[in-house]
Amino acid sequence: MRLDHIGIAVADLEAADELLARLLGRAPYKRETVSDQNVSTSFFTAEAENAKIEFVAPLQAAGAVHKFLEKRGPGLHHLAFEVDDIRAEMTRLAADGFELLQSEPSPGADNKLVCFLHPRSTNGVLVEICQSIGSHD
Amino acid sequence: MRLDHIGIAVADLEAADELLARLLGRAPYKRETVSDQNVSTSFFTAEAENAKIEFVAPLQAAGAVHKFLEKRGPGLHHLAFEVDDIRAEMTRLAADGFELLQSEPSPGADNKLVCFLHPRSTNGVLVEICQSIGSHD
Repeated sequence: MRLDHIGIAVADLEAADELLARLLGRAPYKRETVSDQNVSTSFFTAEAENAKIEFVAPLQAAGAVHKFLEKRGPGLHHLAFEVDDIRAEMTRLAADGFELLQSEPSPGADNKLVCFLHPRSTNGVLVEICQSIGSHD
Repeated sequence: MRLDHIGIAVADLEAADELLARLLGRAPYKRETVSDQNVSTSFFTAEAENAKIEFVAPLQAAGAVHKFLEKRGPGLHHLAFEVDDIRAEMTRLAADGFELLQSEPSPGADNKLVCFLHPRSTNGVLVEICQSIGSHD
């Protein structure tokens, strides 16, 4: 089984397209109505070269993931996008109105520096941007 | 920005690994503790050749996506995995205890046949399996 796509539910397709285009720096490549499911859809390339699925489990009863589980139970938690220069992207995104959850990158899994964006600025999706350590700094 | 990974929150990493290995047919390739975030993680390859991000918006105030938005607001909705033979996969998954939401594949976006699995059998993640029409049938 190969990952084909990630589905994100939105109320307003136009606004969602506009927001993700600003985040990713590319436009949706198609729109399609699926009558059978009573939905309208739009598609962006993920440009994933080496995508992974990551499970995250709290080490103790504290922290953001623990809180998420308490509130919603297990499930889809975040999307992570790789960038070449995390500090430059953080500056760009903050200037564009995205709400950063941290002012400095922090060490993440997989030998990366990471920064999270608040879901209220990204259509309810917790977004991580990450940079492989050594790839730029 | 390139998709790096999809993060899924779970309480029990062992059980989650075991379940996803049965779904995908491959084992996690690593475990890692991220002290800074107070979490333990495990990683699976997504084997995405051509992954997409799909927005889905209800065409009217009815249906599963509308219900999701009413309950949770916008956000991550489902993961879709491409398979070569959707009917064979449906048979395999049902026999393995996964709960199919439909007994026959239905037409989805992107010229595909699709079948959804109930999140209660997949760690809270709505999973779609899909087959490109013409790729097997």
